[in-house]
Amino acid sequence: MKRTLGTCYYPEHWPQEIWEKDARAMADLGLTWVRIGEFAWSRLEPVEGDLHFDWLDQAIEILGKAGLQVVLGTPTATPPRWVVDKYPDMLAYDAQGRPRGFGSRRHYCFSHQGYRDECARIVTQIAQRYGQNPYVAAWQTDNEYGCHETTVSYSPAAKAAFQNWLRVQYPGQGNDGDIEALNTAWGNVFWSMEYNSFDQIELPNLTVTEPNPAHVLDFRRFASDQVVSFNRLQVDIIRRHSDAPIAHNYMGGVTDFDHFKVGDDLEISSWDSYPLGFLEDRVPANDAHKTLFYRQGDPDYQAFHHDLYRAVGRGRWWVMEQQPGPVNWAPYNPAPLSGMVRLWTWEAFAHGAEAVCYFRWRQAPMAQEQMHAGLLRPDSHPAPAHAEATQVATELKEAGTVSMTTAPVAMVFDYEADWSWQIQPQGKGLRYLDIVFDMYRAFRRLGVDVDIVPPTIDDLSGYSAVVVPAMMHVPDALNAVLQATPAQILYGPRTAARDAHFSIPTGLPPALPDMDMVITHVETFRPTVEIALEGGGNIRGYREHVETKATPVLVAQDGGAVVCQFGNKTYLGAVLDGAGLARVATALCAKGGIQTWDLPHGVRTRTTGQERFWFNHLPHDVKVYGRSLPPAGVLREPLA
Amino acid sequence: MKRTLGTCYYPEHWPQEIWEKDARAMADLGLTWVRIGEFAWSRLEPVEGDLHFDWLDQAIEILGKAGLQVVLGTPTATPPRWVVDKYPDMLAYDAQGRPRGFGSRRHYCFSHQGYRDECARIVTQIAQRYGQNPYVAAWQTDNEYGCHETTVSYSPAAKAAFQNWLRVQYPGQGNDGDIEALNTAWGNVFWSMEYNSFDQIELPNLTVTEPNPAHVLDFRRFASDQVVSFNRLQVDIIRRHSDAPIAHNYMGGVTDFDHFKVGDDLEISSWDSYPLGFLEDRVPANDAHKTLFYRQGDPDYQAFHHDLYRAVGRGRWWVMEQQPGPVNWAPYNPAPLSGMVRLWTWEAFAHGAEAVCYFRWRQAPMAQEQMHAGLLRPDSHPAPAHAEATQVATELKEAGTVSMTTAPVAMVFDYEADWSWQIQPQGKGLRYLDIVFDMYRAFRRLGVDVDIVPPTIDDLSGYSAVVVPAMMHVPDALNAVLQATPAQILYGPRTAARDAHFSIPTGLPPALPDMDMVITHVETFRPTVEIALEGGGNIRGYREHVETKATPVLVAQDGGAVVCQFGNKTYLGAVLDGAGLARVATALCAKGGIQTWDLPHGVRTRTTGQERFWFNHLPHDVKVYGRSLPPAGVLREPLA
Amino acid sequence: MKRTLGTCYYPEHWPQEIWEKDARAMADLGLTWVRIGEFAWSRLEPVEGDLHFDWLDQAIEILGKAGLQVVLGTPTATPPRWVVDKYPDMLAYDAQGRPRGFGSRRHYCFSHQGYRDECARIVTQIAQRYGQNPYVAAWQTDNEYGCHETTVSYSPAAKAAFQNWLRVQYPGQGNDGDIEALNTAWGNVFWSMEYNSFDQIELPNLTVTEPNPAHVLDFRRFASDQVVSFNRLQVDIIRRHSDAPIAHNYMGGVTDFDHFKVGDDLEISSWDSYPLGFLEDRVPANDAHKTLFYRQGDPDYQAFHHDLYRAVGRGRWWVMEQQPGPVNWAPYNPAPLSGMVRLWTWEAFAHGAEAVCYFRWRQAPMAQEQMHAGLLRPDSHPAPAHAEATQVATELKEAGTVSMTTAPVAMVFDYEADWSWQIQPQGKGLRYLDIVFDMYRAFRRLGVDVDIVPPTIDDLSGYSAVVVPAMMHVPDALNAVLQATPAQILYGPRTAARDAHFSIPTGLPPALPDMDMVITHVETFRPTVEIALEGGGNIRGYREHVETKATPVLVAQDGGAVVCQFGNKTYLGAVLDGAGLARVATALCAKGGIQTWDLPHGVRTRTTGQERFWFNHLPHDVKVYGRSLPPAGVLREPLA
Repeated sequence: MKRTLGTCYYPEHWPQEIWEKDARAMADLGLTWVRIGEFAWSRLEPVEGDLHFDWLDQAIEILGKAGLQVVLGTPTATPPRWVVDKYPDMLAYDAQGRPRGFGSRRHYCFSHQGYRDECARIVTQIAQRYGQNPYVAAWQTDNEYGCHETTVSYSPAAKAAFQNWLRVQYPGQGNDGDIEALNTAWGNVFWSMEYNSFDQIELPNLTVTEPNPAHVLDFRRFASDQVVSFNRLQVDIIRRHSDAPIAHNYMGGVTDFDHFKVGDDLEISSWDSYPLGFLEDRVPANDAHKTLFYRQGDPDYQAFHHDLYRAVGRGRWWVMEQQPGPVNWAPYNPAPLSGMVRLWTWEAFAHGAEAVCYFRWRQAPMAQEQMHAGLLRPDSHPAPAHAEATQVATELKEAGTVSMTTAPVAMVFDYEADWSWQIQPQGKGLRYLDIVFDMYRAFRRLGVDVDIVPPTIDDLSGYSAVVVPAMMHVPDALNAVLQATPAQILYGPRTAARDAHFSIPTGLPPALPDMDMVITHVETFRPTVEIALEGGGNIRGYREHVETKATPVLVAQDGGAVVCQFGNKTYLGAVLDGAGLARVATALCAKGGIQTWDLPHGVRTRTTGQERFWFNHLPHDVKVYGRSLPPAGVLREPLA
Repeated sequence: MKRTLGTCYYPEHWPQEIWEKDARAMADLGLTWVRIGEFAWSRLEPVEGDLHFDWLDQAIEILGKAGLQVVLGTPTATPPRWVVDKYPDMLAYDAQGRPRGFGSRRHYCFSHQGYRDECARIVTQIAQRYGQNPYVAAWQTDNEYGCHETTVSYSPAAKAAFQNWLRVQYPGQGNDGDIEALNTAWGNVFWSMEYNSFDQIELPNLTVTEPNPAHVLDFRRFASDQVVSFNRLQVDIIRRHSDAPIAHNYMGGVTDFDHFKVGDDLEISSWDSYPLGFLEDRVPANDAHKTLFYRQGDPDYQAFHHDLYRAVGRGRWWVMEQQPGPVNWAPYNPAPLSGMVRLWTWEAFAHGAEAVCYFRWRQAPMAQEQMHAGLLRPDSHPAPAHAEATQVATELKEAGTVSMTTAPVAMVFDYEADWSWQIQPQGKGLRYLDIVFDMYRAFRRLGVDVDIVPPTIDDLSGYSAVVVPAMMHVPDALNAVLQATPAQILYGPRTAARDAHFSIPTGLPPALPDMDMVITHVETFRPTVEIALEGGGNIRGYREHVETKATPVLVAQDGGAVVCQFGNKTYLGAVLDGAGLARVATALCAKGGIQTWDLPHGVRTRTTGQERFWFNHLPHDVKVYGRSLPPAGVLREPLA
Repeated sequence: MKRTLGTCYYPEHWPQEIWEKDARAMADLGLTWVRIGEFAWSRLEPVEGDLHFDWLDQAIEILGKAGLQVVLGTPTATPPRWVVDKYPDMLAYDAQGRPRGFGSRRHYCFSHQGYRDECARIVTQIAQRYGQNPYVAAWQTDNEYGCHETTVSYSPAAKAAFQNWLRVQYPGQGNDGDIEALNTAWGNVFWSMEYNSFDQIELPNLTVTEPNPAHVLDFRRFASDQVVSFNRLQVDIIRRHSDAPIAHNYMGGVTDFDHFKVGDDLEISSWDSYPLGFLEDRVPANDAHKTLFYRQGDPDYQAFHHDLYRAVGRGRWWVMEQQPGPVNWAPYNPAPLSGMVRLWTWEAFAHGAEAVCYFRWRQAPMAQEQMHAGLLRPDSHPAPAHAEATQVATELKEAGTVSMTTAPVAMVFDYEADWSWQIQPQGKGLRYLDIVFDMYRAFRRLGVDVDIVPPTIDDLSGYSAVVVPAMMHVPDALNAVLQATPAQILYGPRTAARDAHFSIPTGLPPALPDMDMVITHVETFRPTVEIALEGGGNIRGYREHVETKATPVLVAQDGGAVVCQFGNKTYLGAVLDGAGLARVATALCAKGGIQTWDLPHGVRTRTTGQERFWFNHLPHDVKVYGRSLPPAGVLREPLA
């Protein structure tokens, strides 16, 4: 695999006179890729049917002739005003029942058929015109599905589409569904919530108290499926006209739709990596941690996403947007510590990225993102990231090609489990993504590489250990795959605690084979409560009560079982703090014969097939196994 | 009085095959009561007019034949979907002006006449069918009026009904009211808020800044009256067909309607006691307190409600729902410390409960309350509470019958005062219920029994002391009763500070007889401000400035009067911390000749006519007057 | 200039029998002014067209004959219910899209033409009747424009008016505007936000993510202009009938419209000063500060407004409402420390007030402000402030007339900059008003008098220093004036960082002449981050990165430039804590030859042309340069 760099460019924002100079400067820097077009609908079609492709023809020509490969985006994330005038009911509705209006971006409901038709039309026009263009080397569909909480819409269009989706999920006679099947699956006898027909079913917002979790889970599945089919609509059109690979750029920390399912329709997975932008609101960590890393970002959050999107892309993945400086949208927007842009880039490559594209080429002086840094300042001088990108480009020249190998640990990530925890956290602040991330971090702090895998994985061979954290419903197929592996398996809290329709399984959780235990009940705790483990570490926030004849391998000081083992299967029945998780991860690695490292806080290591990387996320020098790493230091060593 | 146990059962949730086994197991445990039916409308009438009583006939027969007495609930808290389709405008509206939709429970506005007609119809059907059933030994109307903040509705139906209610309150010529009387009573000359007619009057939500407090108070009285008349509608129907006593199950901490007025139409008052569910959001206490009691619940909060509902039921009261394990709805949901379910049960009996029913018999695997524990687990094995309930059942057999006696202290509780403080707290966070509760706690920490009494009480004989905390308007009738008693009277802050229409009384507060003092002005404080009392304790949050020729019996270190005495009447003009309240309560008991105890923190004592109880709410052993109490310990001693 | 006292009176609230006694008591106290009428519409015109002026005739006659001068308010802040019935669409809409209903005050949208017509009619009636009344010595338009966040409305009327306002701002052919000019100015090519016509432009609320800042800024300018024209409508009418000066009473801390522009149409500027009411929510300070000053109010907040409104009134200004005791509307409402009402009054005079009027004469027993103290209690006895007002009245008799002189420091205050920071804070919690206020405080703690000046000032002669903090767009005219002055100029962070349409200026900020520096990028920080300055003080929250060949005069410990100097121009590129700001202010005063003082914390000094005042805002005695000041002490010394 060759490793490449790129950037995101908006020719429509700049005078045509400077396009060529920009293109040359990109090439000179050593960039391979330039993404364009994804917000340009109003310039391509200022009035319905009045298509203006000339400028885009020319931009692609100029960029291509300078030696760049174009990633062409479909412009469907920003329908022009006239589209909204044509379909006033195309807007998404928020949970409060209000239309989410024109004036920024992503102002559409995935369920609106009129808007889908409009998208099909413009995508067809673009694919026809550029499908065979020699410089268009890849495609991007839309932009950051789900960003600004746009996956879930409570619009009239969504309601009608949800009823139809349910009719298919609970099929009956003829075209209609079987409403009794739905009533039974959801347990609607509870509180007399039974329906007589599908057209009585509303979206689960604005109820008096919480709605039925089974109702919400089906609604969330529906909302995710709408993204999948919206994306597929575009992919099918592009494929008819182009052989170039198609990507989508997912946004970090967005879990409202199933990225694996969208990814199944794409050649490349890519994500938008804003380490400082994510730190304040998305990383589960305390004030001290966020203060220490305020200019570096969390040392595991990006790596987690790299590993996730490597899975979503079935190996092929990019960083489509890499933060190059301060952004405009986080609660606080510091500048990266000098060296971090280089570190983030190499970290992505260490996790297997094919390309890292900096967002954006030049900081725009106007509109919503005017405070978002680029590789160039608004006055076209180099911004601080420019030198770091240049350094990486230089380093890449001598770095050669690499391949990725299977990590020792596989960790199952399940979007549906995230929705399920959102629907029923049972304790304030408990989040699936945080629990998974904390377990991921536990292995990474031990220097262990992790492959994230989808819940549909059908082969776990090659892994020494498999971690399944907090996956509330485990489908039979995955259970069968887990049965088949000789690897060490670690189940996290609440795994297999629900059936497919959000009911507690008959016979109590966990609904897992070969586990001679049941969870009799669950407790959640206020943050001031800590329940100490025998030997160190604490339970925080969530605990299960385990009934088993087996002797637990880890107990709380009050005697309750915390970790139980049955052959190669380990069950962790609590949310633990870092010290507790470190013990569980260390023990699993020991059982699985996985090498671990004693890393300084903030230092991480990662391997490709050919190299071992060391990354120092700290703002000061560290020593690690004899090596010296400066602040933001990156060390790349050939594998022995 | 005989003391009994019971449970809440949903035969419609379970296969008919297990009903008999369930019934036998209930009887074997020693239960007397089983409540059923209160959410079953969609099974009784799945489609309008299509009544299905067979299954309920059979369930009652099976339960009754097993020796259980049935409490039959009317199903009006959960109208089926078809009822909402019939009356789309029956939904309550929230303060933001949004309808509160179908999909959970309590989705109706008390003011909607169509829904009232529908309720009358189904209640008539049920009462006719089961009014003479030998196993139906009691009734419950609806379920938890006001829960999920459903007393107050801002719907069009509520607006029309409020205007009509006002026409009656301010009567004029013919059918119309006297709008000038209303303008004068409300002081509408202020800010030109005067109305020309009743149909101009809107509900007091969504105003530019705060609405007129007199407007809001009348609206809150109206909303309360709507609950009273809604309940009376059902009671009148049931009475026509049955001689069995009728109860309603109030929810703890809900004060949005006048429970005394609803209770006046019922034979039995009952409430739903969730000690751990209430701790986080409803109990006024700091983090340390909530952490210490996180598995036990607050040591006074349930007792307060027991004493309140003994008053609401005029002596006859139950716990209709007793928390048996973790619940699903609090911010954090721990399991009770072992022994606490037994303690809570005996505590209810110590305060005079006739029956304690555990909610629910078996944990349901589906829908909203799937994480709510029962006496049985979802797999029908006994949950931890089962053994504790069994122990109580055994203990009850030898405990015999008891009677309740008058407590030394009466405390007046006034729902209208709660609304008045909500309308005008004057300082952020000041709440009537908290002020009353803290004063109640002060006496309970001294081991003193308290009777809560309604503001309409007409006889205070038998009491050594009467406490009237924070009752913003004191009606003439109560003033007369207070004048007549030789008991020590303690008025709390803001007592009699308003007339019946929320104006400051002529001559300044307190509008109480025989008090040679006026409150010239009031201060409220940020939480960081503490104003020390001479001799210990502090003013927190609220203080009145007293003008009097008398010498205060307690002053602040700055010299201001805090407590004044005029004969048997004591006036406390501030909100105090625990240390300050302890001094005031101790002094009152000394003056009234009431015995006090020096109890360890977390230990409480209560007497019936025949017994003294000791309760240890702490998670560790304590000694109290020579007795040893284990964690969650209960000691029952015959009265000397 | 003569210094006078007054009060606010509502004859319509009290029986006519006591008006004369009230009037006599006011005169006896030594009051000159009495403001009346501003909320009395429903008594002047209870039904459309049915005018009742008799009572007002009589009230003015009684007050006038007692020797008082009447300030007559137009009643347009409280249209009666029948006006709203006539124009149901006259209500303002909040940002959530909900009409803000009748039932309190300020329930109108400034853009509604029907309501403007109604206002013109009632103001004409009043001006005709009282324009030549000998006792009506001044006028007040409406009441507290913008209070309760009423400047900005999202109503249909506002939308239509905004579109028309834009057509004028971006003029095109005929009556229509030039939509391409708007698209270019706003940068609407970004995210395809381009419009085809003005009637497509919506108000910038309820967008999916943040709207275009240029869109919002124009909307905020429009909203401000609507207040200006609404006020001018009334002024033009009054002027046709009366020669008495016209005032408006601005509310402290309200910055949503340009007070300078409103003030340009008035003779007198006045504001409503509630020192304790403002402390909790409006003053930027920590808990310790708010606790120390909880009964005194912030020592600089009122002074800042005094200096601001002296500028708004071009020298003529009043305190129209002075807090006399506890108020009803702040989160916490303590009583002023004894002496503070006198201190606040003298402080206003020290800053040049012509009159200070206490709000209100007598505390009302009813409606929304029943907990708002007056000079009299509701029972007509003197409230604590009465004696302090009497003392001031006595002191005034011997104090004689004074004149104001130019302060050594001018500080530019720009309402548009406040909106710009609100639109784009870039870091959570960053506010223009706070930054300006903290810089103001820095000079005041050094005992330096400050004149606040408008951004339209055309002559800075007489000033030794000029401070321009955080003014995001500096117009050319102001730049020219700043170029012309030999005074020391201190620019604060983010000055001239945007052009007139909220774009980053070509060539990077600051867009200021003679500054050999550029701001390359900006950082914002979480509150736990402190960046130490060399020599003391810290950067907090906001920092600019400066590129310059000059040697900075103040740097951070990390070496970054913080303060740069170019001749008489100093640029501060960060938000500093108090210690840091003290250093910057001290250095500026030294360079400008401005005398500074070493004042105890909480002590302030101010001069008129003839006197030096010393004010002790602390609750304990202090010594200052040999003088002793008791708590709330005021010392007035003739200038040497």
